Amino acid sequence: MAVGLTSSPRLLPVTGIRLASTHAGIRYQNRSDLVLIEISSQSSVAAIFTQNAFFAAPVKVARHHIDQVCPRYLLINSGNANAGTGKQGEQDALICCYKLSKLAACRTEEVMPFSTGVIGERLPTDKIVKALPDLMSQLHTDGWVEAAKAIMTTDTVPKGLSRTLEIDGKAVTVTGIVKGAGMIRPDMATMLAFVATDALLPQRLLNDILRDTATTSFNSISVDGDTSTNDACVMIATGKSGIDISQRRDAFYKVVVEVMEYLAQAIIRDGEGATKFITILVTHAASYHEAREVAYTLAHSPLIKTAFYACDPNWGRILAAVGRSSIKQLDIRAVDIFINDLSVFSHGRVASNYTEEAGRLEMARPEIILNVALNRGKYATKIWTTDLSHEYVRINAEYRT
Amino acid sequence: MAVGLTSSPRLLPVTGIRLASTHAGIRYQNRSDLVLIEISSQSSVAAIFTQNAFFAAPVKVARHHIDQVCPRYLLINSGNANAGTGKQGEQDALICCYKLSKLAACRTEEVMPFSTGVIGERLPTDKIVKALPDLMSQLHTDGWVEAAKAIMTTDTVPKGLSRTLEIDGKAVTVTGIVKGAGMIRPDMATMLAFVATDALLPQRLLNDILRDTATTSFNSISVDGDTSTNDACVMIATGKSGIDISQRRDAFYKVVVEVMEYLAQAIIRDGEGATKFITILVTHAASYHEAREVAYTLAHSPLIKTAFYACDPNWGRILAAVGRSSIKQLDIRAVDIFINDLSVFSHGRVASNYTEEAGRLEMARPEIILNVALNRGKYATKIWTTDLSHEYVRINAEYRT
Repeated sequence: MAVGLTSSPRLLPVTGIRLASTHAGIRYQNRSDLVLIEISSQSSVAAIFTQNAFFAAPVKVARHHIDQVCPRYLLINSGNANAGTGKQGEQDALICCYKLSKLAACRTEEVMPFSTGVIGERLPTDKIVKALPDLMSQLHTDGWVEAAKAIMTTDTVPKGLSRTLEIDGKAVTVTGIVKGAGMIRPDMATMLAFVATDALLPQRLLNDILRDTATTSFNSISVDGDTSTNDACVMIATGKSGIDISQRRDAFYKVVVEVMEYLAQAIIRDGEGATKFITILVTHAASYHEAREVAYTLAHSPLIKTAFYACDPNWGRILAAVGRSSIKQLDIRAVDIFINDLSVFSHGRVASNYTEEAGRLEMARPEIILNVALNRGKYATKIWTTDLSHEYVRINAEYRT
Repeated sequence: MAVGLTSSPRLLPVTGIRLASTHAGIRYQNRSDLVLIEISSQSSVAAIFTQNAFFAAPVKVARHHIDQVCPRYLLINSGNANAGTGKQGEQDALICCYKLSKLAACRTEEVMPFSTGVIGERLPTDKIVKALPDLMSQLHTDGWVEAAKAIMTTDTVPKGLSRTLEIDGKAVTVTGIVKGAGMIRPDMATMLAFVATDALLPQRLLNDILRDTATTSFNSISVDGDTSTNDACVMIATGKSGIDISQRRDAFYKVVVEVMEYLAQAIIRDGEGATKFITILVTHAASYHEAREVAYTLAHSPLIKTAFYACDPNWGRILAAVGRSSIKQLDIRAVDIFINDLSVFSHGRVASNYTEEAGRLEMARPEIILNVALNRGKYATKIWTTDLSHEYVRINAEYRT
């Protein structure tokens, strides 16, 4: 069902990064479910994690580890989230890191664990530990697509993007992969993203770039308003291209934004049951906060989401959602609504040239921009979301998160 | 699909109230869609309306009228919400009031208009005006059930309740009807409720009772988090029983609460696509606000709602929703979860005696109490909601609100 995504992304190696994937048998049959990412020494690594108070054991351990040392290995499993597993869960995540560190001759703290899948079941550490020697022996630079496949849960396609940037006649590469299809909302909802570049970046600049680009990418999407226990986004700069991007910071930043926004949008395009890719654009708000508030109220309204699914240009539901958002003293007569370029509502009533037929035509497109202009200020925001389909209900009634 | 509702409520007349219903042909075929409620003079009447900034024309007119005089007539149509219709909509609502006032020999301001149905289409005033003489001639005291039927939109059953209270050997009656099945959330979402008693109540006490009982009834329900443009709840005390309830205020209050909570719950039981009636109970919160915040986060989570639909005791989704609610410094290990009386989660992990089979058994019941104890204070709240089913998507993809 993924809206506008290819099922076989082409991903470029990043010098200084090696990957391996294998079938450890955690939950799924006949597919890989365990990934190892090796990061060359002297890299910079930054990470952000779920803001959910109910964070999983691997999130606690990974946070703790990166606070101490720069990671050398990322160990990622799908099929089991190791969440809601208490102290036992933390011990289970730690033992996997410890066993890997022995094989790799590094410190336990240099391994970051990541898990995604079913909540509340104990992590099968024996299966993971047993697969580690195999993983270590299979590390190679061209393993990005395999890794993108191995971290999938309810995702229908592997998701990733590579971009290159030429600086002084030499190429810098940015490659990223992501998983996530539901329980999506800002603050790093059920998603794992790993983005690497061979550019040379000081740690501090990498931290800044991750924080800034996450705001307009992963923190600007919503499938269903739910956030998860295990989310993480890791950004790695190996420096192996030897190219310092300090002098070309803007151009590099632009490429990173492109990769991060692509990955974030890919989650939405592969959103559970999604038949539409919807950009919600709220403009002329009195504040950025107000614009976000209206945008998320629209994105989370089941009535609006079902209307998108039904290709129904139901501006009544849109206005009702704008009207109930918690912004103060809104004059609804000032609000303009556009679906793509079609003016739908203006001056307190349906737009003069608007017809239902024209509205339906726009709503029938697989990619729709809903623009709500509040006309009371100069702030704007953009978020991405999906429709609410029969398939969403089916997936979430049948799949055990 | 209505969970635990009868399709033929028994409703008692209230002395001082007469009703009539008819088919005006506004939208529906072969059913009544226009109701007139006549209120005897010297009654007290209180009303509350939607808090949505995008309120409909009849809400504006009705608010304006009751601010000036005590109403004598309520004119209610289904099939058309007269919302998003601008100045024209206000004129249309007004003309209906005016025409009725001429027939009834009262002031235009003594008529309150109410509409529910499709947004954005012009109200067919000619059809309504044409039906008024018929309505006037058919007013009778026993028209409550007919009226409950005529105000339905996506409702599957007429909803109402009568209760009597004996005071000094004489009976006081409270009868109420309600419509509403979707776009439900606090602040009077798409619902109309009319509650009348023949008790003698001063205006000020009636206002207080309406405000207090609405908080724990209509403002404690949620089907889908959406609120509407047209909601209103009117409470009438005709005084025709001659019984002053000032001395039995508590007993009377209890009966009104029973009627109001029944009507509010009936909306949920008849919620769009509902297969379950769910009480969400948040206890031991640090503040009332915090308890409400957690309760609504749970009630609005599509993942939790689909889990209820699937009879899946998915405490991971429940904890993830508690964890993302905006309460500060929550220690998730202190949280206890009960489904009905079954302990599910405690001390940071699954409860020791809990089994999936036991969980599924509780989740399979048509009525479920989800109790989340935050264990950080003494405040509690209770709200009612439904599951999210295939049928919800079907109804809202097909029906044009």
